[in-house]
Amino acid sequence: MHARTHKITVVGSGNWGTAVSKIVAENAKSHSNIFEPTVNMWIFEEEVTIPEDSKHRKTLGSHPMKLTDIINSVHENVKYLPGIALPSNLVANASIQDAVKGATILIFNLPHQFMVKTCQQIQGHNLPYARGISCVKGVEITKDTVSLFSEIITETLGIYCGALSGANLAPEVAAEKWCETTIGYDVPPMDVQQGGPESPANISKVNEQREAHTKPSSVEVQPVPEEYVPVDENLLQKLFHRPYFNVHIVPDVAGVALSGALKNIVTLAAGFVAGRDWGDNAKAAIMRIGLLEMMKFSELFFPDSTYPQTITQESAGVSDLIASCCSGRNYRSAVKAAQTGKTIDEIEQTEMNGQKLQGASTARQVHSFLEKQGKATDFPLFTAVYEILESKSSISDLPRLVQQK
Amino acid sequence: MHARTHKITVVGSGNWGTAVSKIVAENAKSHSNIFEPTVNMWIFEEEVTIPEDSKHRKTLGSHPMKLTDIINSVHENVKYLPGIALPSNLVANASIQDAVKGATILIFNLPHQFMVKTCQQIQGHNLPYARGISCVKGVEITKDTVSLFSEIITETLGIYCGALSGANLAPEVAAEKWCETTIGYDVPPMDVQQGGPESPANISKVNEQREAHTKPSSVEVQPVPEEYVPVDENLLQKLFHRPYFNVHIVPDVAGVALSGALKNIVTLAAGFVAGRDWGDNAKAAIMRIGLLEMMKFSELFFPDSTYPQTITQESAGVSDLIASCCSGRNYRSAVKAAQTGKTIDEIEQTEMNGQKLQGASTARQVHSFLEKQGKATDFPLFTAVYEILESKSSISDLPRLVQQK
Repeated sequence: MHARTHKITVVGSGNWGTAVSKIVAENAKSHSNIFEPTVNMWIFEEEVTIPEDSKHRKTLGSHPMKLTDIINSVHENVKYLPGIALPSNLVANASIQDAVKGATILIFNLPHQFMVKTCQQIQGHNLPYARGISCVKGVEITKDTVSLFSEIITETLGIYCGALSGANLAPEVAAEKWCETTIGYDVPPMDVQQGGPESPANISKVNEQREAHTKPSSVEVQPVPEEYVPVDENLLQKLFHRPYFNVHIVPDVAGVALSGALKNIVTLAAGFVAGRDWGDNAKAAIMRIGLLEMMKFSELFFPDSTYPQTITQESAGVSDLIASCCSGRNYRSAVKAAQTGKTIDEIEQTEMNGQKLQGASTARQVHSFLEKQGKATDFPLFTAVYEILESKSSISDLPRLVQQK
Repeated sequence: MHARTHKITVVGSGNWGTAVSKIVAENAKSHSNIFEPTVNMWIFEEEVTIPEDSKHRKTLGSHPMKLTDIINSVHENVKYLPGIALPSNLVANASIQDAVKGATILIFNLPHQFMVKTCQQIQGHNLPYARGISCVKGVEITKDTVSLFSEIITETLGIYCGALSGANLAPEVAAEKWCETTIGYDVPPMDVQQGGPESPANISKVNEQREAHTKPSSVEVQPVPEEYVPVDENLLQKLFHRPYFNVHIVPDVAGVALSGALKNIVTLAAGFVAGRDWGDNAKAAIMRIGLLEMMKFSELFFPDSTYPQTITQESAGVSDLIASCCSGRNYRSAVKAAQTGKTIDEIEQTEMNGQKLQGASTARQVHSFLEKQGKATDFPLFTAVYEILESKSSISDLPRLVQQK
């Protein structure tokens, strides 16, 4: 019955993109009855010189090479995930249109500022019945609305899209240290096989409520043809679960996607507090207050499509916040800002090697959205982080600004 | 109307007991219309030699002195909270019966192993209409039931008792670093003044549901006489809130008391993982799984008297777990156990200076209770910690033991 195998493409190849590509390539090889063994990973092509301390320096030499060629010859992303052996069935591809061609499952894993442009490049080249999973952290503010990247993917490419997020610091996942993740995925109504194990009544009901958000009415999503194994919970487990990467699937795309974005704002606040040496009690208090604001945001703006417990109980919510407030990039930058008196923007410019701090841009975007909605005062922590970024408040004001009445 | 002032006694004088005594003594002085300025702190008397590095060594000399005399002369608990100036209206008292005499508010803050005996010493000496707040971390397993210390206080002393817990590492609170705490307190039905601000309909309803747990039927609790300000949310805020100590009151004594006890089990597991260097993702995963087991325990055994959100959203729950898994004593001991290959019992004997690790005894007590209830397999993390303590499982088994199906 399921005569065809799913073709998987990962769009993106930073450290997290490469780590996820490794996972799905490992699983594609193990489940060759469901997936094509070859997994494509789209790379924004660049010339790379093999670092001096790389074991591949001897083989490949010291002249600049295309990153795709390096990955496809030594099976290592020497620039963004050095030292991690990649499966040989993972193939780097610099052509976005070629990489997504014929793919039935598209996994998006890019810095959020590149998402809209990349989706536009894919438009018209993807299968209309493909399914997407967004690992992108962030939200897109357009006019007066807040959009999840899963929604933008649906709108741009006409495909149904879920979200993956969790306490997943990429170097640890790549090193196969044990962890958990959360996938938000409502099996699209047209994919639900009546009476099948993947279609309990409650999931169908949830889907009805959520259709407005995850499948904008202007978009025609096509069912996955019957010759493929349905893209349901079982399939997603087979695609993403590894002994070191535990997948929990919830029917709450908004909760998963928002957690990944909003937690970066909270992480900045936790870093400010830690940098000032206010202690672990204060840091925990900031994280708790942030968690409640994440939940409030999710319930206020995605009331039909989210559950509060995604944020307080799933890896995408509370665990990701905890891990990010231990050693994430945004956290460390905020600690340094508080210690040195520099602004986050200065830290970003001088120490981030061209990379952007998602927390800062998310805090600004979310604040501008909340202002337009007249809701900024309902989110005192988000607002305080924005004001500190803009030097309108000082870190010392944090307790007063976020304190419960 | 309220002609009499509340007399406050704190039972206990360790670092946390002394820090809480400092808080309530500060507030008693500020609100002399409600509270007697003098706050009693009961001390288990001991002879103490002023440490060489103490600034009081010059004044008091190097001969051993009674701890009560030291505290009452230099206003510092040089043994358990050195370096912190205590308010002069806080008076140390070595006689438990004398300390509690006439007290209308009793705050319990002792290591849990001393609680039952101390309550028995108080029995017959307390005012029958006093109100209690338990800051004790732990649960008491008697026969086939699990009892909160708030319940034991009610049963032994015949007084109504709430609970206080939160992300409150004592040295930080004592140093007046900003933090939050949670008080679980149902205004006892006989104290509710109809139509007053402290008696919304929902609180009365909650009280009805909870009476069975917080006021065992065999116990006659007397109303607070009308000449006192009622012991309600407003009064508890005045007694415990400080600019650096933010109080949030919830009508869920069980949730607050259980969080403080059960989190120590989770903290051990997090320490094991950190000690093995499995990374922040794994530690966050363990904390999340532990949080869910804390919630499940609370809902299973205190179904009428607890809310799940106390554990996932309050300082007593998620924040306390986070702070304890950063730098608490149980956490550090578990890290060391995992790093050295020693058992927790060995660490306790060799490095804890005679103090007991609450996590280890709570894990054993909770496990024996769960076994009797036939529920051990429903709590894989609690069970795994017990098995690691008993050398029946190894730390390496943790992921397999707690992994979601």
